Amino acid sequence: MSEPSTETKVETAEAAALDLANVSDDDRSGALHAVADAIEDAEAKILAANEKDVAAAEEKLAAGDYTQSFVDRLTLDAAKVESIAEMVRSVAEQDDPLGETLEARRLDEALELYKVGVPIGVVATVFESRPDALVQIAALALKSGNAVILKGGSEATHSNRVLYELIREATADMPDGWAQLIEAREDVDTLLGMDESVDLVMPRGSSAFVQYVQDNTKIPVLGHTEGVCHVYVDSVADLDMAADVALDAKVQYPAVCNAVETLLVHESVAADFLPGMLARYADAGVELRGDERTREIAADADDATDVAPASEADWTQEYGDLVLAVKVVDSLDDAVAHINTNGSKHTESILTDDADRAGDFMRRIDAASVFHNASTRFADGYRYGLGAEVGISTGKIHARGPVGLDGLTTYKYYLEGDGQRVASYAGENPKPFLHEEFEGEWVPGHLASTR
Amino acid sequence: MSEPSTETKVETAEAAALDLANVSDDDRSGALHAVADAIEDAEAKILAANEKDVAAAEEKLAAGDYTQSFVDRLTLDAAKVESIAEMVRSVAEQDDPLGETLEARRLDEALELYKVGVPIGVVATVFESRPDALVQIAALALKSGNAVILKGGSEATHSNRVLYELIREATADMPDGWAQLIEAREDVDTLLGMDESVDLVMPRGSSAFVQYVQDNTKIPVLGHTEGVCHVYVDSVADLDMAADVALDAKVQYPAVCNAVETLLVHESVAADFLPGMLARYADAGVELRGDERTREIAADADDATDVAPASEADWTQEYGDLVLAVKVVDSLDDAVAHINTNGSKHTESILTDDADRAGDFMRRIDAASVFHNASTRFADGYRYGLGAEVGISTGKIHARGPVGLDGLTTYKYYLEGDGQRVASYAGENPKPFLHEEFEGEWVPGHLASTR
Repeated sequence: MSEPSTETKVETAEAAALDLANVSDDDRSGALHAVADAIEDAEAKILAANEKDVAAAEEKLAAGDYTQSFVDRLTLDAAKVESIAEMVRSVAEQDDPLGETLEARRLDEALELYKVGVPIGVVATVFESRPDALVQIAALALKSGNAVILKGGSEATHSNRVLYELIREATADMPDGWAQLIEAREDVDTLLGMDESVDLVMPRGSSAFVQYVQDNTKIPVLGHTEGVCHVYVDSVADLDMAADVALDAKVQYPAVCNAVETLLVHESVAADFLPGMLARYADAGVELRGDERTREIAADADDATDVAPASEADWTQEYGDLVLAVKVVDSLDDAVAHINTNGSKHTESILTDDADRAGDFMRRIDAASVFHNASTRFADGYRYGLGAEVGISTGKIHARGPVGLDGLTTYKYYLEGDGQRVASYAGENPKPFLHEEFEGEWVPGHLASTR
Repeated sequence: MSEPSTETKVETAEAAALDLANVSDDDRSGALHAVADAIEDAEAKILAANEKDVAAAEEKLAAGDYTQSFVDRLTLDAAKVESIAEMVRSVAEQDDPLGETLEARRLDEALELYKVGVPIGVVATVFESRPDALVQIAALALKSGNAVILKGGSEATHSNRVLYELIREATADMPDGWAQLIEAREDVDTLLGMDESVDLVMPRGSSAFVQYVQDNTKIPVLGHTEGVCHVYVDSVADLDMAADVALDAKVQYPAVCNAVETLLVHESVAADFLPGMLARYADAGVELRGDERTREIAADADDATDVAPASEADWTQEYGDLVLAVKVVDSLDDAVAHINTNGSKHTESILTDDADRAGDFMRRIDAASVFHNASTRFADGYRYGLGAEVGISTGKIHARGPVGLDGLTTYKYYLEGDGQRVASYAGENPKPFLHEEFEGEWVPGHLASTR
C-alpha cells in the first residue's frame, strides 16, 4: 500500500479528533500505559534505529556540519529509552484535563449554561531532532484528547519512524488515525495550508523556523520566537546570592531559551559586584560584552577581566551560547525600561532583598514569567509542575510561558433548556435573566422533566 | 497640531498598556463611570454628530446602496444614548478580571509559583457601523486593563469622533493614549503590519472582511468567520415546543450570526412536523429551500408550502436573512455528521425529550455552543451573563463562543524564590521538586525573610 498523502493524513486525523474528544480518561490513560510498556519492550529496536540516525549525524559532525551537542541530543541509550517510558507514564497519571465544568450559570429557571473543558481538535507540531520530543508531544496530545500531526527533524527519521509505529500499534484501541507522522519538508507546507482542518500548530526549534511558520499559515501558531532573558541585580541585593543565581542562569545550560542573555546591574552595587562576577563568568568560559561603565569597572579591577564593547544589537540578541551582555543601569526604572524595550517577554528575574522593589519590578515587566531571587532557568514545564510541556510560548494569546496539558484544551458551552425562545426575553415586556452562578456539573437532559 | 501617524498611535498605546496593567480596578471602574456620565451629559452633541452620519447614509439608502436596517443600526436617539451609558456602567460593575491567582504551586521550600490574571496588552478592533460598538469595546478594554486601537465603520465617522473624544476626556486620569482612534482604511493595513506592537486583533463585520484580516496579518486574530447554525428536531422531540424554538431561531432576528440557517428533521417525525412548521415559516416571510424529502412532504401536505430545491451550496451558507434550508435526516448520527461537516462550529441545537440522545448529540458536535431544547439565538455575551461581548469567536484558540472580559485577559507566572539555582535540581544528586498546590495569593518578597 502506498503512503497516504499529507491531505489524507490530516483529514483522517480530523475525523479521529471528533471521536477522541469522547474517549474516557481511563481509556486514554490506559493507552498511554500501553505505549510506555511497548517502548520498554522495544528498547533494542529503538536503539538500532537510533544508531542509524546517529551514524549519519556523526558523518556530518566530522564534516563540521553538526555540533557535538546536536549529536548528543539525537543519541538515545537504554537509560534514555527508560526515561521516555517513564515520562509517558507520568503524563498518563496527570489529572484529566477534559470534562471539568469551568463555570455553571443559571440564565433563567430551567435554562442552565455550562462551560466545559474539551480538546482543541487537531494539533500539529513541527519539532527538533530529539526523538523523545515525538513521544512527549504524542503523549500530551492523547492525554488531552487531541489528534496530532507529528513532523520531526529529518536527522531523527529512523528513530521517529520506530517510535511512531510503536505508538500507533499500542494505541490501536483509540480512534483510528489519531496520530499521523509526516516526514518531508514539503509536507509541512501542505500542512500549513490546511487551516480548515488543523486547529493549532506548534513549531519548536529555531527562531527563524518559528518565524517561517508564522509567515506561512493562517492556522493559529503557538510558539516562542526567542528568549532574550535578563537578570537584574538590584541596589539591595544579597550580592553573594546574586552571583550564584546569575552564574546559574547563564552557564547551567546556555543553549536553551530560558538562559540569561543580558545581566543588568544597579549602579550603586556595580563596583562591588561586577569584578568578582565577571571573573567567575570568565572562568566558566563566558565571553563578555559590556556597556561603557561595565568595561571601566572591569578594567579598573585588581584582577581585570576582558569585556568587549557591546553594540546596540547585543541588547536584543539571543546568544544561546556562553556569551553574555552586561549593562550598568541607574535605577530599577531603567532596568524595567531596558527589559520592556529589549526583552522577548519570556523570563525575567530581579535579585533584591527589598520586597517593594521586587513587587514593583515584577508587576511592571511584561513577560510570561517574572522571578524574584531565582534563576531564569526555572521557566520550564517540568520544573513548574505541569508534568511535561509542548513548548514555551512567548505570545500572550491562548497559552503563555511553559505550555502543558491545559494549553491543549479549549472549552465548549452547553446550554440546557426547556424550549426557551429569545423572543420571550426581548421586545416590549422582556423576561429578565437571572444570571446566577451555581455549583454543578452538566447532566444532559436533566431539565427535561421540568416541563 | 497635525494628526499623529498610525504608527505613533499604536506605539503610544503600547507604552500606555504597560502602565494600564497596573492601574487599580477602582480607578479603571471610576474612569468608566466618568465615561458614562460624560455620554449622558453630551447627549445633544452626540445626536447632532450622529445626524450627519445618518443624513449621509440616507442619501445612499435612496440611491439603493444601503439597506434600511443598516441605517437603523447607525441611527442613535436619546434612549439609545442612555442605554450606551448604562452599558458602560454595567461593564464598570463587573468583577475585576485582573489580579486573580489562578494557580499557586510550591516547587520547593521557599520557591513558590503563582499564575496570575493580567491584561493582554494592546488589542485592536475593527468594527461595523454601530456607534455603540466603539463605546462597548473601549469599555471592555479599559475594564480589562488593555490599551485599545479602535477603527469603526466610515459611515459612523462623525458619531465615532464625538464618542471617542468624550471617552478620551473622561479618562484623562488613565495612562495617556490608552485608547486610539484610526479612521482610514489604509490605516488598517498599517495596523495589521504592526505585529510587534499589537497583541490581538478582533475584526467584527462581514465574513469577507474577517477573512481579509486573517490573510493579511501575523497578529493573532479573534473573530468569527460565519455562523452556519443548525436546529435538529429529533425523533422524540416535543413537536409543539420544537416548532416554537425553530421559528424563534430563524425569525426573531435573522441578520445575526446565531440565527439558524439549516433545519434538520428526523425522518420519523418529518411527516408530522414539517407541514405545519413550513407553513409557519412561510407565514413569517421565510424563503424555504429543501432536500427532496422535505419538498415531497411540503407538496403532499393538505396546505402545501412552496419549498425550492436546495443545492449543495445551501448546506454551508450563512444567509443572514429570512431564508432557511431544510433537510430530513435518517438518524441522530446523520444529523451529527451533517453538522460537523457543514456547520461553522458556532451554535447548534438539538430538540429532544430523550436525555441520552441529547447528551450524545451535544458531546459529539464540535461547536463553541451546543444547546438542548433552546433557541440558537441565546448564544450571546449578554444572554450568557458575560456582561457584554467583544465578539463571538468561531476559532478554538484563546477564547471560544461569546467573548467577554475573560477573553481580554491572559496570565503571567510569578516565581518567588530565595536564591535558588537550577544546578541544585540537576546533575548527579538532584534535589527533588515538591510540586504542591496550595491556596494563596502572591505577596511579593514574602520569602525574603526565610534566608
